[in-house]
Amino acid sequence: MTKSTIDFRSVNCGRAAPELLEALTTANTGTELGYGADTFTAALQTRLAEVFEAPVRVFPVPTGTAANAVALAASCTPFGAVYCSPDAHINTSECNATSFFGGGTKLVQLAGTFGKVSADALESAIATAGTGLAHKSQPAAVNLVQATDLGAVYSIDEIAAVSRVAHAQGLRVHMDGARFANALARLGCTPAEASWRAGVDVLSFGVTKNGGLLADAIVVFAPDAATSIGFHLCRAGLVWSKMRFASAQIIAYVADDLWLRLARQANAAATAIAARIEPIAGVTILAPVQANELFIDMAPAVLSNLEKDGILFYRRGPRLARIVCRWDTSDADVAALTGSISLHVAAAAAAAAAA
Amino acid sequence: MTKSTIDFRSVNCGRAAPELLEALTTANTGTELGYGADTFTAALQTRLAEVFEAPVRVFPVPTGTAANAVALAASCTPFGAVYCSPDAHINTSECNATSFFGGGTKLVQLAGTFGKVSADALESAIATAGTGLAHKSQPAAVNLVQATDLGAVYSIDEIAAVSRVAHAQGLRVHMDGARFANALARLGCTPAEASWRAGVDVLSFGVTKNGGLLADAIVVFAPDAATSIGFHLCRAGLVWSKMRFASAQIIAYVADDLWLRLARQANAAATAIAARIEPIAGVTILAPVQANELFIDMAPAVLSNLEKDGILFYRRGPRLARIVCRWDTSDADVAALTGSISLHVAAAAAAAAAA
Amino acid sequence: MTKSTIDFRSVNCGRAAPELLEALTTANTGTELGYGADTFTAALQTRLAEVFEAPVRVFPVPTGTAANAVALAASCTPFGAVYCSPDAHINTSECNATSFFGGGTKLVQLAGTFGKVSADALESAIATAGTGLAHKSQPAAVNLVQATDLGAVYSIDEIAAVSRVAHAQGLRVHMDGARFANALARLGCTPAEASWRAGVDVLSFGVTKNGGLLADAIVVFAPDAATSIGFHLCRAGLVWSKMRFASAQIIAYVADDLWLRLARQANAAATAIAARIEPIAGVTILAPVQANELFIDMAPAVLSNLEKDGILFYRRGPRLARIVCRWDTSDADVAALTGSISLHVAAAAAAAAAA
Amino acid sequence: MTKSTIDFRSVNCGRAAPELLEALTTANTGTELGYGADTFTAALQTRLAEVFEAPVRVFPVPTGTAANAVALAASCTPFGAVYCSPDAHINTSECNATSFFGGGTKLVQLAGTFGKVSADALESAIATAGTGLAHKSQPAAVNLVQATDLGAVYSIDEIAAVSRVAHAQGLRVHMDGARFANALARLGCTPAEASWRAGVDVLSFGVTKNGGLLADAIVVFAPDAATSIGFHLCRAGLVWSKMRFASAQIIAYVADDLWLRLARQANAAATAIAARIEPIAGVTILAPVQANELFIDMAPAVLSNLEKDGILFYRRGPRLARIVCRWDTSDADVAALTGSISLHVAAAAAAAAAA
Repeated sequence: MTKSTIDFRSVNCGRAAPELLEALTTANTGTELGYGADTFTAALQTRLAEVFEAPVRVFPVPTGTAANAVALAASCTPFGAVYCSPDAHINTSECNATSFFGGGTKLVQLAGTFGKVSADALESAIATAGTGLAHKSQPAAVNLVQATDLGAVYSIDEIAAVSRVAHAQGLRVHMDGARFANALARLGCTPAEASWRAGVDVLSFGVTKNGGLLADAIVVFAPDAATSIGFHLCRAGLVWSKMRFASAQIIAYVADDLWLRLARQANAAATAIAARIEPIAGVTILAPVQANELFIDMAPAVLSNLEKDGILFYRRGPRLARIVCRWDTSDADVAALTGSISLHVAAAAAAAAAA
Repeated sequence: MTKSTIDFRSVNCGRAAPELLEALTTANTGTELGYGADTFTAALQTRLAEVFEAPVRVFPVPTGTAANAVALAASCTPFGAVYCSPDAHINTSECNATSFFGGGTKLVQLAGTFGKVSADALESAIATAGTGLAHKSQPAAVNLVQATDLGAVYSIDEIAAVSRVAHAQGLRVHMDGARFANALARLGCTPAEASWRAGVDVLSFGVTKNGGLLADAIVVFAPDAATSIGFHLCRAGLVWSKMRFASAQIIAYVADDLWLRLARQANAAATAIAARIEPIAGVTILAPVQANELFIDMAPAVLSNLEKDGILFYRRGPRLARIVCRWDTSDADVAALTGSISLHVAAAAAAAAAA
Repeated sequence: MTKSTIDFRSVNCGRAAPELLEALTTANTGTELGYGADTFTAALQTRLAEVFEAPVRVFPVPTGTAANAVALAASCTPFGAVYCSPDAHINTSECNATSFFGGGTKLVQLAGTFGKVSADALESAIATAGTGLAHKSQPAAVNLVQATDLGAVYSIDEIAAVSRVAHAQGLRVHMDGARFANALARLGCTPAEASWRAGVDVLSFGVTKNGGLLADAIVVFAPDAATSIGFHLCRAGLVWSKMRFASAQIIAYVADDLWLRLARQANAAATAIAARIEPIAGVTILAPVQANELFIDMAPAVLSNLEKDGILFYRRGPRLARIVCRWDTSDADVAALTGSISLHVAAAAAAAAAA
Repeated sequence: MTKSTIDFRSVNCGRAAPELLEALTTANTGTELGYGADTFTAALQTRLAEVFEAPVRVFPVPTGTAANAVALAASCTPFGAVYCSPDAHINTSECNATSFFGGGTKLVQLAGTFGKVSADALESAIATAGTGLAHKSQPAAVNLVQATDLGAVYSIDEIAAVSRVAHAQGLRVHMDGARFANALARLGCTPAEASWRAGVDVLSFGVTKNGGLLADAIVVFAPDAATSIGFHLCRAGLVWSKMRFASAQIIAYVADDLWLRLARQANAAATAIAARIEPIAGVTILAPVQANELFIDMAPAVLSNLEKDGILFYRRGPRLARIVCRWDTSDADVAALTGSISLHVAAAAAAAAAA
């Protein structure tokens, strides 16, 4: 008997939503101008302006790292400092792309809870940064990851508080929205409320992690931040000549609220898992489950037994499992995971009692 | 009566081959590891090793600019000089990406014919470059565009001659193969003969211009040149998390010699155009038509009349039209273009005679 | 009656040793080749090889920041991580020069005591850095400041322990020796024992802070680390054409142990201050006084009164004074400072008792 | 019998003017704030404002390369193009420092006569540069070397013409004034007329080549160009902590018109050489002798015989000698050189006649 494979490793391991693939085929007709001068990219501008209720500039890009690094480079001088959480993707997982694109930009980590930057921590850091002193990296931007890398979601008030501090000091507010749809699904507000109305100047608009395949986007709310982005992208090899195939994906992604439906499915799976395992003694959920990820503390033996059951996930420590739900995580997957946890925790407890 | 639109502007304006789109759908099943650790990317390594008859390393990338810039950055120190044709894409159309990725790498232009670098010009330039002198950019790599930006194709002997000079002086040989398939179709040799056997160390393997949509690749023949490429790509945001969808495209591209069939179609269209217009007095083809592009000198009035006929192309000067053929350029397109040229040239001649 | 000005702000505020100025005049005769090909620079190589009992390469540079940044750039790839203390000059006071020169190098801070990096902290950090993973900055070098930015001196064993960890993992050991002479004077060992014999690969050899005027130097012990330094320096505008005037300063600096005599004078002043104020209740010295700097906790009113007495120093917090001694800090300066502290602390105590 | 050494190799081989050394000793008293906050640097601002009759910002720097690269970096985006002569120092002798400091800035060479950039060539180049196109480096600045690297001097009208074109298109005008004093001595105009009144925005103010030792300066006329310069300098390690010793040199350099006297001496020597050798058949002066350098075509045998006579100079080709005069080039040096040339040319002619 073969064990089924149940995969909670990463959204990156998952499939694309079929709607996005279909959009590629639809776009594959006739000729179009290259490098973003096509009709699909023009339509994307209009479409996201409607979604965000604002005159946005949209730049499709291959990856979230590209979106983050270029958005920040366009917000900084080479002498700039970017404030972020120690857990932020730009700090942990992008090979210092921010500094590469920025020409030496410095990342400055601000302690916070569950991967968040707080307005207070930002204010303190700026106050002692040495603004105007040539030997000090100059405060330039703040990076908020929404949902955070630990699965939490900033409230609108939290974003607005950070933005107020940032703008008062002349900093740009960048939101790494790799999981923006998941956050939005949680918050239940409009895209505008979760972004520029709360002070966000430029947004890395995540698609890949929520049913996309090969494209994310930069969405710029502050017009002057857009000026240099085209150049940054071009000289980094980030501008597809056949841009229509990227733009078409993103148009399909937001059509008929597909993006929000996909995100709700992923979030619902995470919520369901949390609800079932929270009551179990010996299982501790370490961060708020507000999007599609769970960070769970369990005995090492339980982790090993889950793996033996063919459940895939990443260990982030001897007792720490990260569980990531995707748009196509099924009820059966949820049941398999939570069933296995219950079983192995109970067995471990029985063994301990017998010992 | 509407005039039909006939488009000779650029390969970038064209469609993708349906086989590549189908491959995306085929790849969209089950889960796969992210960032290139998937089974499709592994298969791509194997597949291109067969195509090139060598143990290559393959890195799918979004664009040819990315391929060029990263391939060169991996071949240079920040103090390096890259020799290229003045017409080379890296010099004219990439916003100095080479220097950005290289941390200050200098492009040094070598005069040559039809966009080619000659072994002699390279040898002279290196001899006077000031090797070892700290105030001089150090010779590091040479860039060959195949087919060139003016539509010519390097012979294998020409490549080998440049490579001998380069390797004798410790330089890397980079081939910008945005039109590698077109060149190969022209040369009629194996991929190995046109690349590493002639001395090429690293190849920008073009897909987009020949029926691709969103991916090209770096193919590395010199193993030590591959070491840093993964890091360069990651910190530039050039590594897709769902890499399988890029690799699947390229696998489909080389399957059953699709790439060579597509290239032959484009080349054949260009050759047919050349054959029909060469005899026309008042029409001069300015560069060898060896791939899929033509550079044609005609009277300005003829150019304007072509445009009025709904034929799309780019002007590169008051009398200079660039005509680019795609894999799906039809016989009707060819007939329309050459018919219009004949007509308007004859009309212009008649007008001149009458005057 | 005017109050005298007594200056404990920084070594940078101080004079140059007259011997260095005299050396400039001596060097100002005849013609010499430019850019370091002169006889003075050649003699400097020989002279420092004797001082360090090793075949060193010496590069005179204008500043310690230049020395640090170039030494580290020559030790790293652009994807590299440099480990350092949070208090390290490269982290606090060089406008991220390390990242600028390195092309995106990341500084990673390691907690430690009194500005030191510990072998254990380094080992832990490397172990979890993700060596070989393309999305992670790669461990490349460790930076030790000797004496530290908080006035402490690494023991030879401490340096050797860090070096063992670093070298076992392929990292370079860089010592920021802006106060190397002060550390050496404290340790009482040879320059070789305090540097390469303990594992240091490349040393920023401080001159300016210890009686110099316009030059410091990079001293390279690991021959292969020297290869790229000349290029890094040249393209940063750090190579004087009339290098003899820089080299002559440094030759004079080490002649007849001048450097050690100057450092001993500065250290002795600091030690004398510490000895006199340690017994005073209400005065706490916050870090070991092992070189020429003291960090002293006193009541804010005392700090203000010192300032009213015309004693110059920098506040590093509401209760924290940094006192820096120079080679020409006089006994009278020491007496004035310690006398004022005693007086004002006593007055404050009396006032408190009366209240 | 020893032959005397007569050195026409480079100004970099020469001595410093004693006045500058004396200024160092004078400055070596008391304490001063570091990093340019000292009274000497403040006085330098005032002094050069008087010299230039304008509210300049002055930044002392170690080298002309630093001055050039930082001045240009402050005038460009990373996507910028800097126009210059192929012979310009920034293009031939600075290891691409412009690109390093600029984060990828591109140098674009404009053909011209005797190392000059012409207004016409600049206008043509800008017109075809592709302003606003993201794949093209954007016109940002023009670099004029005064006197040029071939010994010619721009007239004020020539500078003004270039500046008009540049400013009309939004470019900055940078003057590399490594030999600014020599040019000024030639032009006989005021420093203001030769710089900002003719449109120069930022000037590399050369000191080293005209009797300096370890410092040059950036002089900024366009206030907004100064904003970022302090940061660029700091993170490149170009800001001396004991800045007073740099500023004092430059104050001495301009005191009592010392700089102009030194330059006139050097120019006079060059003029005298030109006057004596111009009549000689077989000797051709290849560029206008307008400053302190001569480029002379002579038979290879003559060049060799000069070397045998102990006359030092650099060969720039088989028949091409570069002769550089310094402020302390003596009448005896001039006589020795011109005498030797006369002698050996005559001997060669006699030998040819006898053959």
